[in-house]
Amino acid sequence: MVISSIDKLARDKSIEILRKKFRLLAKRIIEGKRPVIVMPKRILSNTIYDEKNKLLLLGPEMQRRSFLDVNEARKFMQTLLMASIIYEALANNEYPTIRDLYYRGKHTIIYRDLHGRTHHENTWDEQRESDSVIRDLEVYLGVLREEMLILSKEKGKVVGNLVIKSGDDTIDLSKMGHGAYSIEPTPDLIEFKDVDAEYVLVVEKDAVFQQLHRYGFWKKQKAILITSAGQPDRATRRFVRRLNEELKLPVYILADADPYGWYIYSVFKIGSITLSYESERLATPSAKFIGVTMTDVFGDEIIREKIKDLKSIKTISSSTLRKLPRKKPYLTEQERRNYIIKAKPKDIERAVELIGYDVAEACLENKELKSKIRRKKEGLAGYPWFRTPEWIRELCIFFKTLSKLEIEAMASKGLKFLADKYIPEKINVGDWID
Amino acid sequence: MVISSIDKLARDKSIEILRKKFRLLAKRIIEGKRPVIVMPKRILSNTIYDEKNKLLLLGPEMQRRSFLDVNEARKFMQTLLMASIIYEALANNEYPTIRDLYYRGKHTIIYRDLHGRTHHENTWDEQRESDSVIRDLEVYLGVLREEMLILSKEKGKVVGNLVIKSGDDTIDLSKMGHGAYSIEPTPDLIEFKDVDAEYVLVVEKDAVFQQLHRYGFWKKQKAILITSAGQPDRATRRFVRRLNEELKLPVYILADADPYGWYIYSVFKIGSITLSYESERLATPSAKFIGVTMTDVFGDEIIREKIKDLKSIKTISSSTLRKLPRKKPYLTEQERRNYIIKAKPKDIERAVELIGYDVAEACLENKELKSKIRRKKEGLAGYPWFRTPEWIRELCIFFKTLSKLEIEAMASKGLKFLADKYIPEKINVGDWID
Repeated sequence: MVISSIDKLARDKSIEILRKKFRLLAKRIIEGKRPVIVMPKRILSNTIYDEKNKLLLLGPEMQRRSFLDVNEARKFMQTLLMASIIYEALANNEYPTIRDLYYRGKHTIIYRDLHGRTHHENTWDEQRESDSVIRDLEVYLGVLREEMLILSKEKGKVVGNLVIKSGDDTIDLSKMGHGAYSIEPTPDLIEFKDVDAEYVLVVEKDAVFQQLHRYGFWKKQKAILITSAGQPDRATRRFVRRLNEELKLPVYILADADPYGWYIYSVFKIGSITLSYESERLATPSAKFIGVTMTDVFGDEIIREKIKDLKSIKTISSSTLRKLPRKKPYLTEQERRNYIIKAKPKDIERAVELIGYDVAEACLENKELKSKIRRKKEGLAGYPWFRTPEWIRELCIFFKTLSKLEIEAMASKGLKFLADKYIPEKINVGDWID
Repeated sequence: MVISSIDKLARDKSIEILRKKFRLLAKRIIEGKRPVIVMPKRILSNTIYDEKNKLLLLGPEMQRRSFLDVNEARKFMQTLLMASIIYEALANNEYPTIRDLYYRGKHTIIYRDLHGRTHHENTWDEQRESDSVIRDLEVYLGVLREEMLILSKEKGKVVGNLVIKSGDDTIDLSKMGHGAYSIEPTPDLIEFKDVDAEYVLVVEKDAVFQQLHRYGFWKKQKAILITSAGQPDRATRRFVRRLNEELKLPVYILADADPYGWYIYSVFKIGSITLSYESERLATPSAKFIGVTMTDVFGDEIIREKIKDLKSIKTISSSTLRKLPRKKPYLTEQERRNYIIKAKPKDIERAVELIGYDVAEACLENKELKSKIRRKKEGLAGYPWFRTPEWIRELCIFFKTLSKLEIEAMASKGLKFLADKYIPEKINVGDWID
């Protein structure tokens, strides 16, 4: 077998952490004490948005898993089972995936109770269960699963003036022809050797990435061009974060003008809410949303009067809303008519989740929708990082027009327009949303 | 703009074909004749399975689209509109996607009829319509959309001892570190420079590709390792076909033991039924299904008696079924219990589609399902290329056990087992299904 020296190092490091942590547990058992695992609670109510660093973090609430508590014994055992499987995989130079960790641990324990009755108990039934245990271990050990050489499928691609070392190879990402470099599932093991770029452009859609790449966008603009091919996976997020943090490159996100696109931006920037513990390593708090914005589509005229009068919105004063810079649309009336897509109920629901019910209520013109939102406003205060004047204006246009737009519509105005005007112009004048 | 010389050549070639074809049409119009487009019918009843070459082909039925026929005028105009958009994109060094071709052509034609009434007519409403027009053009022109520099999203990845030229770069696919090379959307423009490999292994699942790659499988086995990341896209299929045809490398498909996996094999080997015109260029008729087979999971014992007595199956004599070589399972009873997944109704439906209702009826043990199949056997004769003794045995086990298995289950027996034993052993002894 061909063992990469870089993988060997990573393995040894993780093995050491696992040993250390579980040796303590073993010690407790030997000393006759109750075996207990203590780790931060991975639940929404223990997820804190750190306003200053713009990050989601786990709060101070802890959970205890005691082997001798009937309610916790199952989870305790699952945690130890998974830890031992991962340990063995590390020691045996394996590269498991979360799917096969599920299979490796899946079996039925047959036992007799005090009354001699036979019972069957599965270690876990669904992958959802074993995945959750892996996440627990990440939090407990303070190690990401990628560092334990657990692999996963990987969608992210990159091209640009960047030379990296991955495994034992040195790879020039400006020499990929018409293809691209697929980011590895363990991006922390990548070494950045040389870079000649001014920023990172992350494109939501693979097809638009292909177009910009083929057009030579990154050569002309000195950009590192990346696609997440939809909802970004962990490796792509970590890779982008490292480019930002270590190479000091600004990061711009180009996504559709719709709640799905906004959420992709949010995941890159802040992290995903259910996996807040990873955002400290995976999120890029300084990432900007370069477009497509609703103001690129409609300008701000359409909503100007409304925005000035928005008094009902909490935490934002109407004067800051009034002071937003004016915006002209990039699309003509005719283009808008051809390109715009009607928002679906699911889009509206998501948009409310992002920005909060009060903005929706204030900006929706459809009375039926308005009262529907009013009825179920519970828990829909919006994500704090979307409660900025710029995002309120964006979403207000969305609610007023109930329209969305794909990046492809911008490309259909001509690739020249997208690559030589729209993106560079917006970056040059700072026309993005933070 | 950075124009690749290879793209320039491809453009010129497609422009020439478009010009030639439509100049004839223009000539007819100038001569005062009815403008008509004649092309093969792209419908199921005009799709023929070429038994000898193992390919799906379009049959001899032709369709005429006349501008002066009210029923055909809309389709005629759509075809010309799309052709002109593609022509312009080619001439302007654009790289459109099928999505933005949809946007480029989408507009409303306003006209007055003889009575002075105003009408509104959309060029097309949904992408389904414009996509169908692109397919018509591919058939009419005898050119694949990729050759017209129409791009699309791309999932396929490759690593191995293969040096290619793509665009202006020479790329060594054995030097990708832990990452991989993303196949370009126009694989016909790739030039194979140097190869040192004995076969191509196509893995359905990206995560399993990552595992085998990381393990050094392709180095040890002298293989070119590819993943389609699920249902293969056109570029991955064309790339695999070219490796097979031009470099004479045998192709093996590693997919899940379920109807979805079997269908992926079928698309690589024969082509997709709705797009039969492309299979002549995209399919790899000699591709083999290396696993996971149902006999790898269960052996053949479980079905041996049944297979011997299968008299009700059309086109296959029971003596050929009897002569099938015996097979031992790779899994123990215990492993089977842990790894097997119960087939869903959708799986059963698909399996019947692939193999035909008669095999399902003969092998199902569940009486309720049996009679359900019997009731709707219409049109479910199975695909001819699945009606071989080997596939009948496979599907018979599936129907009898109503079980399926993922490749990950094999990996969870240890990557060593998958990479050093299962795959090489099967290839060495020829234990595949054609």
